Amino acid sequence: RCAACRHLRRRCPSDCIFAPYFPANDPHRFACVHKIYGSSKVGNMLQDLPVELRAEAADAICIEAECRVQDPVYGCVRMISLLQQQIHNAESQLVKARAEIAVLGSHAQELRHHVQDI
Amino acid sequence: RCAACRHLRRRCPSDCIFAPYFPANDPHRFACVHKIYGSSKVGNMLQDLPVELRAEAADAICIEAECRVQDPVYGCVRMISLLQQQIHNAESQLVKARAEIAVLGSHAQELRHHVQDI
Repeated sequence: RCAACRHLRRRCPSDCIFAPYFPANDPHRFACVHKIYGSSKVGNMLQDLPVELRAEAADAICIEAECRVQDPVYGCVRMISLLQQQIHNAESQLVKARAEIAVLGSHAQELRHHVQDI
Repeated sequence: RCAACRHLRRRCPSDCIFAPYFPANDPHRFACVHKIYGSSKVGNMLQDLPVELRAEAADAICIEAECRVQDPVYGCVRMISLLQQQIHNAESQLVKARAEIAVLGSHAQELRHHVQDI
């Protein structure tokens, strides 16, 4: 029985929608998804996708559910905010570094002219 | 009636858990959340939080649900990947800029010594 069918205390059918993405050895993965979305929503979300996209969708759904279990207010939106802050910081450092390069460049230019004049 | 009670075709009770966060003038907001999580899961998620955190939680839940409606495979995990890529790019540009500053700095130093020697 896959982790989902174990959790739901049911027989795991041969065409189980969950079995390929929720192996029995990782019960926490399904428990999070079940707590946040419920098994029928997750089953529907997977069912609505072509088979070749279901594994990636299951992974993304699990990431979102785990984030929301850990952080019931912001879920993975907190990570988006933190990453946006981090980009903002990196970009302002880049603006400063480029300004420094411009100053150093023109300073080197002046010195070069000075050397030529001598 | 709030957007949730309208969507669920029920009377909106005076202590409705959804009413403060799902105003009647924005039916799309609740429709997304209902499609992805279902109303009882969202009601429980809000109920489990202190009142002062519920508005922010409802906003984050809506962002996650809207992302997943738009992108049924990756949901808002796609945004996290894109932001991580953007940080990676900004940080490699920063490393290059700092290397350029070091080169320009030592070049200026050499020129300065050269001027002093003359």
